[in-house]
Amino acid sequence: MDAINAVFSTTYEIDQKCGTEYHQRFKEWLKHVQENDLCVQGAMTDVKGDRGLSPSKQADPDMFVHVVERRSDGIVVRGAKASQTGTANSHEMLIMPTLRMREGDEDYAVTCAVPTDAKGVHLIYGRQSCDKRKLEAGDIDVGNYGFGGQETLTVLEDVFVAWERVFMCGECDSSIMLVERFAAYHRQSYGGCKPGIGDVLIGATASMADYSGVSKAAHVREKIGEMIHLAETIHACGLACSYAGSKTMAGNYQCDVLLANVCKHNVTRFPYELCRLAEDIAGGLLVTLPSEADFRHPVIGKYIEKYLQGVADVSAEERIRMLTLVHSMTFGTTAPSYRTESMHGAGSPQAQKIMIERQTDMNYKKKLARSLAGIDEREDVTA
Amino acid sequence: MDAINAVFSTTYEIDQKCGTEYHQRFKEWLKHVQENDLCVQGAMTDVKGDRGLSPSKQADPDMFVHVVERRSDGIVVRGAKASQTGTANSHEMLIMPTLRMREGDEDYAVTCAVPTDAKGVHLIYGRQSCDKRKLEAGDIDVGNYGFGGQETLTVLEDVFVAWERVFMCGECDSSIMLVERFAAYHRQSYGGCKPGIGDVLIGATASMADYSGVSKAAHVREKIGEMIHLAETIHACGLACSYAGSKTMAGNYQCDVLLANVCKHNVTRFPYELCRLAEDIAGGLLVTLPSEADFRHPVIGKYIEKYLQGVADVSAEERIRMLTLVHSMTFGTTAPSYRTESMHGAGSPQAQKIMIERQTDMNYKKKLARSLAGIDEREDVTA
Amino acid sequence: MDAINAVFSTTYEIDQKCGTEYHQRFKEWLKHVQENDLCVQGAMTDVKGDRGLSPSKQADPDMFVHVVERRSDGIVVRGAKASQTGTANSHEMLIMPTLRMREGDEDYAVTCAVPTDAKGVHLIYGRQSCDKRKLEAGDIDVGNYGFGGQETLTVLEDVFVAWERVFMCGECDSSIMLVERFAAYHRQSYGGCKPGIGDVLIGATASMADYSGVSKAAHVREKIGEMIHLAETIHACGLACSYAGSKTMAGNYQCDVLLANVCKHNVTRFPYELCRLAEDIAGGLLVTLPSEADFRHPVIGKYIEKYLQGVADVSAEERIRMLTLVHSMTFGTTAPSYRTESMHGAGSPQAQKIMIERQTDMNYKKKLARSLAGIDEREDVTA
Amino acid sequence: MDAINAVFSTTYEIDQKCGTEYHQRFKEWLKHVQENDLCVQGAMTDVKGDRGLSPSKQADPDMFVHVVERRSDGIVVRGAKASQTGTANSHEMLIMPTLRMREGDEDYAVTCAVPTDAKGVHLIYGRQSCDKRKLEAGDIDVGNYGFGGQETLTVLEDVFVAWERVFMCGECDSSIMLVERFAAYHRQSYGGCKPGIGDVLIGATASMADYSGVSKAAHVREKIGEMIHLAETIHACGLACSYAGSKTMAGNYQCDVLLANVCKHNVTRFPYELCRLAEDIAGGLLVTLPSEADFRHPVIGKYIEKYLQGVADVSAEERIRMLTLVHSMTFGTTAPSYRTESMHGAGSPQAQKIMIERQTDMNYKKKLARSLAGIDEREDVTA
Repeated sequence: MDAINAVFSTTYEIDQKCGTEYHQRFKEWLKHVQENDLCVQGAMTDVKGDRGLSPSKQADPDMFVHVVERRSDGIVVRGAKASQTGTANSHEMLIMPTLRMREGDEDYAVTCAVPTDAKGVHLIYGRQSCDKRKLEAGDIDVGNYGFGGQETLTVLEDVFVAWERVFMCGECDSSIMLVERFAAYHRQSYGGCKPGIGDVLIGATASMADYSGVSKAAHVREKIGEMIHLAETIHACGLACSYAGSKTMAGNYQCDVLLANVCKHNVTRFPYELCRLAEDIAGGLLVTLPSEADFRHPVIGKYIEKYLQGVADVSAEERIRMLTLVHSMTFGTTAPSYRTESMHGAGSPQAQKIMIERQTDMNYKKKLARSLAGIDEREDVTA
Repeated sequence: MDAINAVFSTTYEIDQKCGTEYHQRFKEWLKHVQENDLCVQGAMTDVKGDRGLSPSKQADPDMFVHVVERRSDGIVVRGAKASQTGTANSHEMLIMPTLRMREGDEDYAVTCAVPTDAKGVHLIYGRQSCDKRKLEAGDIDVGNYGFGGQETLTVLEDVFVAWERVFMCGECDSSIMLVERFAAYHRQSYGGCKPGIGDVLIGATASMADYSGVSKAAHVREKIGEMIHLAETIHACGLACSYAGSKTMAGNYQCDVLLANVCKHNVTRFPYELCRLAEDIAGGLLVTLPSEADFRHPVIGKYIEKYLQGVADVSAEERIRMLTLVHSMTFGTTAPSYRTESMHGAGSPQAQKIMIERQTDMNYKKKLARSLAGIDEREDVTA
Repeated sequence: MDAINAVFSTTYEIDQKCGTEYHQRFKEWLKHVQENDLCVQGAMTDVKGDRGLSPSKQADPDMFVHVVERRSDGIVVRGAKASQTGTANSHEMLIMPTLRMREGDEDYAVTCAVPTDAKGVHLIYGRQSCDKRKLEAGDIDVGNYGFGGQETLTVLEDVFVAWERVFMCGECDSSIMLVERFAAYHRQSYGGCKPGIGDVLIGATASMADYSGVSKAAHVREKIGEMIHLAETIHACGLACSYAGSKTMAGNYQCDVLLANVCKHNVTRFPYELCRLAEDIAGGLLVTLPSEADFRHPVIGKYIEKYLQGVADVSAEERIRMLTLVHSMTFGTTAPSYRTESMHGAGSPQAQKIMIERQTDMNYKKKLARSLAGIDEREDVTA
Repeated sequence: MDAINAVFSTTYEIDQKCGTEYHQRFKEWLKHVQENDLCVQGAMTDVKGDRGLSPSKQADPDMFVHVVERRSDGIVVRGAKASQTGTANSHEMLIMPTLRMREGDEDYAVTCAVPTDAKGVHLIYGRQSCDKRKLEAGDIDVGNYGFGGQETLTVLEDVFVAWERVFMCGECDSSIMLVERFAAYHRQSYGGCKPGIGDVLIGATASMADYSGVSKAAHVREKIGEMIHLAETIHACGLACSYAGSKTMAGNYQCDVLLANVCKHNVTRFPYELCRLAEDIAGGLLVTLPSEADFRHPVIGKYIEKYLQGVADVSAEERIRMLTLVHSMTFGTTAPSYRTESMHGAGSPQAQKIMIERQTDMNYKKKLARSLAGIDEREDVTA
């Protein structure tokens, strides 16, 4: 939804400015998506090559997705999008530029919709931490058996896109508007997503404390309380940037950009501390646990059953299952979505720092200080 | 307003439960306040004595404000409220109990309104950091010449309070409801107050960087960006607990208690880091600055003028004024309201930790974890 | 060496106090170890069951290793040691009690040497994050192909130990001395080990920055500088507790216990921040990288080669290899030894907090404060 | 001693390189200092003007101390040193350059000894937080009655310095060596100084907890334990950089430069957290305490005596004295030496970051990573 909302409002404003008709095209495509209940994946992150160089200055011109041919019926695009989550289970990709384009980068200012199975699209499936556990017999060691995700390196090898699927093509000036809006929506979304994952980790950690008989220890309560505090701080930021949103010219709603960036910036920090505290309370067994195969083994299993029991009433299996869940979230198959995605998804920490600086009215703050310091005339003060 | 709102909704619920008529009395008093445009100070914090003992178990029974006599026309109260902000400029005090009262503490469960100049009320004015600067000639060294506050140790020496000004008297069970609601409102309020003070400090810090010619240095931008990020995180928490508020039985609105506590708990941390960063950028002169008297001195003044100049166009005086503003906020007359009040106002950090723990639905979190770990049946997953 | 040093000095002092002859026995065994160049594994951590109960009060008496039979030629021990690093590549285990034993726990106060292949010893090999990558073809995806470790759940099923291998048996009072000394040595050792691992992670992170062309960006330099600062702080603590060591009664040297605990306590925090910063700079590819199999694939490989190139002169393979090294240290096979072992090895954080509190001369600190506050007579001040 | 040591070794090496005879001169002056038991103040920090410009490029050439005349018998210097601690109680100042001098800055590369009462020296006494309390009757409110310090803006108005007191004059290349060595010694010294102050604050905080009856509360113990941990971490860094020192060419000893910078960098952070925790436990009274004058007042005093009592056996006066000590260290007369001096003394945080980066052998760290990643040949690994 973040990509769709961002393209929706940006196309409207490009049309207002440039006399194009991207917005109408986009609405037609969106109707198609809605009527057919399609899953759309927003595809922004280019592979980027040398980050010190702009798209058109790279040694290899394909380091950012770009238009390689303009035809009467459409365009041909080439390049690759990295670290794309959910591509393999989506019907459509909404391709967007990844940064501010400047003069000379016109071919790189391109937004368009491409079916994931279009000719020339190659999805190279990424590895995940502990991925092979998904292929094992049993349902314990993988940690979270029911759910997961995947990411791809998405290669666009001279893919043809009909004009009715093109929503920006050469409008360098507007690429940053799209990037910032998409980023804000995406950063807002982490204010809901990451506290939710945090809740699971908090529940698992509290359960581990129960199993070891330490849930009443003051330091354990303090640490779990801290986990809640951090998760809820993110949650509060998510709520705040949503509540403070405003209507765009196109009629949809945009979250507050400053607060959305503040939200995401906390997301680049707090989940790591939650993981650290979870590891603290879960104990060293987290990373030395015997395998499910050994646990099911007729001879070895009984030792595990006996020695990994905790407080009365809790079976070793229950404890082991909870440990593998924590493991999956801190090291294993779902750890990237709570750690690395919290760091880099919707933009790396420095991207938020830049936006926070840009969105702040520093002159107003300086004026307040100057007035109180008696440099400017003091307002609201009678002699 | 926090005290008034909390007493408003609590008296309503006490009446519902106990058949008392506190709410109507309180509304009458509130009309009086509004019609006469009176300033009301919420007075909660008792002096507490030995914190390991409940109010009625203290060696000296006056360590918490309590009823020492019940008369036909009213009650007589004794005790003292500590660290009371704004008493000397208020017309009325709204006295409230400071913690959960239990059986045996009935005399301590008392809420009532007392004029600040009532017979038996003694206001002992507290010292403030650098308070004597307010008495000096000149307007620079005090840092913030136009504004300030004061706190008192408020002694109630057998003060008579007519029944129509009594809004709780002996309802031990309800004291904690009042405490928690007042605390929540107060903790919410810091989500607006402290980011506002932060804005001033950020503006002053950025100005100091300008004056020294370092405002473009990457590490300076990073630090000021961090200050903004922290102040806005508090702001977001303040907005979130407000937006997520709900209507009480009495008809006024109560902020979300969990998020208000999360808000305040961040307030016990971030302003200290903002002060630290401000001191970093302001430089060592912050604490070694010559006096205004020397600056105005016909001989010495010229050395100060010459040697404390910064970049071109900025006078030494401007720089000095900004430094004294930062000093007042980190060390001087207004530092307590940004640092210590952030720590202890509306309850010390541990008070929020306890509320956060209490307000969390931990069973729900554990249930999520158990389901994903495959201990409980996995919901929403088909085989 | 930590276990050997701790048992060396403790046995000497037990003998002095109790008239036993453990120290001589231990020296004989140590000669055997040295003459045969044996690898010894210190085995302390019991499985513990319900942590709210002492060893002898557990529902199952085997939750801590204990003596189940005393014979003329030796003792028989039963129990299990959890999360034992390096057992499978060691010749001998030096079994030690894991906490302070009290009256009634005499059977649990046992120190002895057991060959890892003794009758009744069962080593249950633990899983490691991404362990299956070690079995794959190729040498890239595992991240660190040349090195690794393993941990076991070590079960002692009625293992006979001859008296000449028993170095404590029933001396409850002395168990805590052994635990604290071993812990101090072990906590000291992390002051060398973890900064060393940190150096590798710093080097890998800096390389990743080089490959992306961002090594001169101010925020990248700031973050890598922070990584160095944190790693060197641990290093400094390691040096300090070593330098400040002192000779034991037995003649070997014991590190400073307070500083060793301070060292380890920093180890429970800083490596996590180093990992977080490494993930920041490595980028999202860290967790979405295609497999080595795809990279070697005749068709797919060329896309990966093309699109994962960074700055000129750096091949995609070099970049991929460095990324998998970072992955192995933050998520994969070597992550537990940098993260979880930093947390729990040599005792969990709370264990250090307790020791820090116990080792501090708080009365001296209070006396300083009382003197300066003018409560006690002011020393060193003439009127 | 830091200044003396730094000039001692630097003059030796300048002489070796340039054929000058500064070292012998310096030794003569040092003998004079020692024989007469003189107190010497190291004077480095220039007022700096616009920090974006080098000394010789400033609009006003006097923003850094420089030679304005070279005579046969000596030199004449002009400029000012800011934030100079202890000048008023010292006999001599050892003037040093404050940063790396480059071509064109020759006049600014000057080291020399100047008596504090030499003709042309003007000491402008700086204000201190709560300085007027030193002038009040009584000994409580100032917080630390027996000890204190002072700082000056030291103006050098065309001060003549005989050649035998000049230890560097024009050797731009060597100024940075002197700066870095002095800085390292000074940064090392904080590894002893600041933990010592920390001990007082910890003792005072623990006393406050005693007085309120909360010293056994888990969160209070946790916070005081944290204070100890942080103070001892600084202490450990101080010990480590001292132990790891090495002999200079001149024969004295230089601390380890990397570790000394790591030490100081922690000093820019941890004392602030110690202050924050002290404020937490001390309570809000810290900043609202009545005055000693009121406490001694025949009528008001009895209320203060009664209501500020804590646990049995502790008088209100004892509690008040301890609170004013904490206040003096966090807000008052001694706060700058624990907070701001920790930040800026011996160089601001960024100065250490730069030195840490410079002192690190990053190529070695990269080599380790390359070897383990299999980019370079793997060392120490047999196939």
